[in-house]
Amino acid sequence: MPDTASEPVVLYVCTTCRAEGDGDGPRAGARLLAAIQAELEAGPAGALRVEPVECLSVCKRPCTVAVAGPGRWTYVYGDLDPGHSARTILDGIGFYAEAPDGIVPWRARPEAFRKGVVARIPPRGEGPAGR
Amino acid sequence: MPDTASEPVVLYVCTTCRAEGDGDGPRAGARLLAAIQAELEAGPAGALRVEPVECLSVCKRPCTVAVAGPGRWTYVYGDLDPGHSARTILDGIGFYAEAPDGIVPWRARPEAFRKGVVARIPPRGEGPAGR
Repeated sequence: MPDTASEPVVLYVCTTCRAEGDGDGPRAGARLLAAIQAELEAGPAGALRVEPVECLSVCKRPCTVAVAGPGRWTYVYGDLDPGHSARTILDGIGFYAEAPDGIVPWRARPEAFRKGVVARIPPRGEGPAGR
Repeated sequence: MPDTASEPVVLYVCTTCRAEGDGDGPRAGARLLAAIQAELEAGPAGALRVEPVECLSVCKRPCTVAVAGPGRWTYVYGDLDPGHSARTILDGIGFYAEAPDGIVPWRARPEAFRKGVVARIPPRGEGPAGR
């Protein structure tokens, strides 16, 4: 059985995602990452690890993140606003971290997650909790 | 480091995917699963486990599969033809299984995987091979 207490939930943020209007400055994905990191500095978020990723292959629906954790379904979300969704993403991941299998009841999911879901993948066989 | 020798690659097949024209019979996703299983009975496919999944949340791009393995990137593919893609999927997964990180060179990927990629997610921290 996975050690869900010590192994953190991981938030992958695509830093390559480019939004309409992106010029020579940081791309939308990099701005989203910075906004998430700023939110995390403002307050603790439990056992969460944030990892920049060069590409999540969801290029048509920027910005994009994925969230994964031991024994949990992995979710991929797109269509996220780099300027306004950092807090929403972290709130949604809070619910995810509280659900042993990562499946949050529909009503509790942020609207951005309901509309932006790109895919979900079951936990790989990691013991009974993963099935 | 994950034990990549004994832990198999897993192919998740969405059995809920419905294609245009699906009537009362088995849905497109269920037909794709049956076709994959028939291909596997016809010949061995190494350490591959096939798992039906009720929904991969890629409902707009049926049929859909995902492939995952220890220390490997997870890939999600859509737009797969239930009648003609079973052999292609298994061939593509053969290349995936041979790549330690699951990243197959672009030219070696089946066209259905190049065009149908929905998302990819990095391996979660499972040791050095997973980073």
